[in-house]
Amino acid sequence: MADSPDAQFRIRLYHDGKIALGPGRVALLEAIERTGSISGAARELKMSYRRAWLLMDETNSAFAQPVVESTEGGAAGGGTRLTETGRLVVAHYRRAEELAFKAATAEIAVLKKLIRD
Amino acid sequence: MADSPDAQFRIRLYHDGKIALGPGRVALLEAIERTGSISGAARELKMSYRRAWLLMDETNSAFAQPVVESTEGGAAGGGTRLTETGRLVVAHYRRAEELAFKAATAEIAVLKKLIRD
Repeated sequence: MADSPDAQFRIRLYHDGKIALGPGRVALLEAIERTGSISGAARELKMSYRRAWLLMDETNSAFAQPVVESTEGGAAGGGTRLTETGRLVVAHYRRAEELAFKAATAEIAVLKKLIRD
Repeated sequence: MADSPDAQFRIRLYHDGKIALGPGRVALLEAIERTGSISGAARELKMSYRRAWLLMDETNSAFAQPVVESTEGGAAGGGTRLTETGRLVVAHYRRAEELAFKAATAEIAVLKKLIRD
């Protein structure tokens, strides 16, 4: 994570004036990867299924290729997994955050010293 | 600015679980520097005077030293200016943003290529 309790970094990418990618969507993609479904991810992030579904639908539309896709279900029904594009998106976003945070560390340390203890 | 129309960077610093510094407060400090008053800055940022005053009051409390101070007024009444701490805060925040943005540029370029044209 590129966050500490006292400093937070947020990168947002836009498409057509609307958010294409930001911290919430990346966290949702990672939760889908872990849980294998939008409903599992929504539960993990304490978000409604409807909100999670809409966020993924918007994200799929913002990218040239979808970021998630359905998987064939057995008796338990289908799930959702990240596409190759989805995995790339998560990896490059987290790397961008990490590099940004590292580059700004010294300046942020100066700012923290100016903040009240 | 560390922003482009399609990518936005946000750094927030916290004190006691509350925002001490973020993009809105830094923009307000810069507007106070330009206009010489909280009311002028509020007008420039299309924010109520009350909101601008409260934001500066909270920011003053979050830092070990105040970030703004009153100036003696002539016939026109007093104004507000940045303290030495206020100027340092703005400079280091903008530098942090700039370094962060630069460090993440290549990764963000990859992400932009994945976004629909």
